[in-house]
Amino acid sequence: MKKIRATVWGENVQDREPGVIKDIYPEGMHTAIAAGLNEAEDIEARCATLHQPEHGLTEKVLEETDVLFWWGHVAHDKVSDEIAERAQKRALEGMGLVALHSGHMSKVFRRLMGTNCSLRWREVDERQRLWVCNPGHRIVQGLGECIEIPKSEMYGEPFMIPPPHEQIFISWFEGGEVFRSGCTWLRGNGKIFYFSPGHETLPIYYQEEIKLVLKNAARWARQEHLWKGADHCPQIPLEKTREKIGRK
Amino acid sequence: MKKIRATVWGENVQDREPGVIKDIYPEGMHTAIAAGLNEAEDIEARCATLHQPEHGLTEKVLEETDVLFWWGHVAHDKVSDEIAERAQKRALEGMGLVALHSGHMSKVFRRLMGTNCSLRWREVDERQRLWVCNPGHRIVQGLGECIEIPKSEMYGEPFMIPPPHEQIFISWFEGGEVFRSGCTWLRGNGKIFYFSPGHETLPIYYQEEIKLVLKNAARWARQEHLWKGADHCPQIPLEKTREKIGRK
Amino acid sequence: MKKIRATVWGENVQDREPGVIKDIYPEGMHTAIAAGLNEAEDIEARCATLHQPEHGLTEKVLEETDVLFWWGHVAHDKVSDEIAERAQKRALEGMGLVALHSGHMSKVFRRLMGTNCSLRWREVDERQRLWVCNPGHRIVQGLGECIEIPKSEMYGEPFMIPPPHEQIFISWFEGGEVFRSGCTWLRGNGKIFYFSPGHETLPIYYQEEIKLVLKNAARWARQEHLWKGADHCPQIPLEKTREKIGRK
Amino acid sequence: MKKIRATVWGENVQDREPGVIKDIYPEGMHTAIAAGLNEAEDIEARCATLHQPEHGLTEKVLEETDVLFWWGHVAHDKVSDEIAERAQKRALEGMGLVALHSGHMSKVFRRLMGTNCSLRWREVDERQRLWVCNPGHRIVQGLGECIEIPKSEMYGEPFMIPPPHEQIFISWFEGGEVFRSGCTWLRGNGKIFYFSPGHETLPIYYQEEIKLVLKNAARWARQEHLWKGADHCPQIPLEKTREKIGRK
Repeated sequence: MKKIRATVWGENVQDREPGVIKDIYPEGMHTAIAAGLNEAEDIEARCATLHQPEHGLTEKVLEETDVLFWWGHVAHDKVSDEIAERAQKRALEGMGLVALHSGHMSKVFRRLMGTNCSLRWREVDERQRLWVCNPGHRIVQGLGECIEIPKSEMYGEPFMIPPPHEQIFISWFEGGEVFRSGCTWLRGNGKIFYFSPGHETLPIYYQEEIKLVLKNAARWARQEHLWKGADHCPQIPLEKTREKIGRK
Repeated sequence: MKKIRATVWGENVQDREPGVIKDIYPEGMHTAIAAGLNEAEDIEARCATLHQPEHGLTEKVLEETDVLFWWGHVAHDKVSDEIAERAQKRALEGMGLVALHSGHMSKVFRRLMGTNCSLRWREVDERQRLWVCNPGHRIVQGLGECIEIPKSEMYGEPFMIPPPHEQIFISWFEGGEVFRSGCTWLRGNGKIFYFSPGHETLPIYYQEEIKLVLKNAARWARQEHLWKGADHCPQIPLEKTREKIGRK
Repeated sequence: MKKIRATVWGENVQDREPGVIKDIYPEGMHTAIAAGLNEAEDIEARCATLHQPEHGLTEKVLEETDVLFWWGHVAHDKVSDEIAERAQKRALEGMGLVALHSGHMSKVFRRLMGTNCSLRWREVDERQRLWVCNPGHRIVQGLGECIEIPKSEMYGEPFMIPPPHEQIFISWFEGGEVFRSGCTWLRGNGKIFYFSPGHETLPIYYQEEIKLVLKNAARWARQEHLWKGADHCPQIPLEKTREKIGRK
Repeated sequence: MKKIRATVWGENVQDREPGVIKDIYPEGMHTAIAAGLNEAEDIEARCATLHQPEHGLTEKVLEETDVLFWWGHVAHDKVSDEIAERAQKRALEGMGLVALHSGHMSKVFRRLMGTNCSLRWREVDERQRLWVCNPGHRIVQGLGECIEIPKSEMYGEPFMIPPPHEQIFISWFEGGEVFRSGCTWLRGNGKIFYFSPGHETLPIYYQEEIKLVLKNAARWARQEHLWKGADHCPQIPLEKTREKIGRK
């Protein structure tokens, strides 16, 4: 089978200024996420970032992307509507989308959800534990009953999302909150996965279980077939109508 | 119980030019739809149109709207993004939305669905029959097993929508197609209903069963309670955290 | 509007033997649950138990029940298949069902879910906190952002249920687990709510927030209209067929 | 990749008595269905029938089945509860289930759905047309926009099923009805597909498009991984609890 073509989109704003984030991710968060994916023999990941022309997401790049990973945080509104719409359109055709952490507020994810995707949060480096809700699911293969992250940002309910098709993970937080940390949806012919860990000031994308989930997510989200041309509404002429229509 | 406050939004472009549409709906389609709703003692419907300031959908009007009916066709792109977003936000809080006919391509409906809402169509005045999929549902009370519309526009599958929460109607067409003509979704705290009949060159909004469905839809879509303030993400300070967080 | 007719079904096995359960619920858990419901002016609750003829759920009783509450634990298999099927059939017509705590393993709930409804558990009187997932939902009106239960039994994920239509509550447990404690589903024309608190050795059904949730659940689960007669498959004779069928 | 191990369960009652059914399917319907599947190089189908010991569905057979196809009609109640429960349990673990035609009333399908799965029907050899609702879906690959069956039994709405996860096909009937002819659900870790064509007195399982759909369904429904052991509820001892629980 052909390799899964992943594109990791990184906002690359906070992680190119000197500071704690750059110390953890010297070549940018997207590079670390892509490196994790590239550990797998069946995945071929490359990167795209905000500052590139067309944010690195040209028609050609998206055409050649099976699964798009998206990490953004402070510059969601810097993403042009045109590119967000282009990525949404491709996702509806069948490109997988994996929205990461603060990507819950990205244009492309919110457009696909239809809700505002709001949540509660707290940043005090507390313990997070993600419980597996279906041990047979493709995305959790190789994990135990839960993932523990020693220091994490809290994301808490209510999370305003449409009802997920599958609940993959639910998180427990030291401070007393819970969160639907792993959810899937089907939209058009596309498969969407939201995965909440990944705060920028913590080395979460180097954690083995997290890297494993992202690899599995790429495997789960890739569609073999596409639904092309569904962004317009074709008229059916009378001569191509399947039943004879009586005179009125 | 207080009356249901319905607002019928009409695009009011085709129906104010002389011609067949104006002949059928001399005061505009929205006026006819609102008149149908106002036959009910428990509903109080008013109108808003594209050409009014803020398209007639000021903050105040939306605040005082329990259920918004939406009919648009040739001028979806004339609706400002700001007003579409405002209506979407209100819907997520709990305002009901009833999207009518070509309103499947309206900004507000597509934003809430997250898909492109495309379909196939044909305009040859053919017979349409809408089958009831749950005879106990609020929306179908007073109907028989189906609704027959002698002359209608065909809307056919595939209809690119997210999986509905409830299938209310599925249509049969004389020319051989089928369509999910009545669907509901929950988004945030809002209830959404799409109802496909209502082609502008035919007197469909005067048909008794159609008027009844719209009345029932208003009753079904009104929420008693709102989810306010969910359009931002509140930070939870450490001192309001419910569990004591250990030192790291 | 007419009062909501609730029937509280209690297994009434452990709570009629001398001991801690009977000390807390001297007249049985079902009696306490019904008393909580009867505090509301719009609800009229009565009881039924395992030991009554037909477990107290005669055709007439179910016919006169808008919402059935179900608490069972050690004697699920003592409930006859006939009565479980009768309750399921009524639920599909439109009777609401509220399954409580260990009622997740009851015949009627498992029949309606189609899954085995298994979960993980621990009984050490730990703290449980139920987070509200949609503050606008009927079931949570009058609550704050969460409910705290000082001592509770732990129910943890994975909980093998079909994807809920709405996530109402998710629980946090002191011991580190999480659980989908409040979920709704639609089945046929019936509305189903599962609510996890309610361990027999703790006075949880006397807690104000818990009583409030049960009252709200009754209000949410009552259907105004029924889907009768859907337990058989009617044949449509040719003479009642809506379109003329051509000769083959 | 290993071949998909399909088991075709046939009721084999009507099709072993002399008559029109046996004339069409001389070796039984199940044999014809399995032969269609076995045309594919990636599928290995075998059969099981009602009259075999344990209806041919021993623990070992089910253990070695990736996808179970089920055709039954006049003898649903002859299937023992024990075998139905066994098949349901395996489906929840991850065995695919493809319920065919009158299999909508089979014990195993109804147990998994939780609803009564009733519908309306007529047997006058009318034309059926199944419209594809997502052209990108695995199950419809190789088809055009619809499948036409010249002579078929009508199955019509309302069809009392839980809301499908995906709508694959909707049917149009010559006599004026519609039907959700292809639906998928997820239950536990299992994938379920219902496909309505297949009336016993017509040679439908020899039609190329129908055979193609069944092959595709086998490919779609096979799970790579299982959720084992979920039919009981494990207790978590205090010493294996992940967080220290405070003294009360």
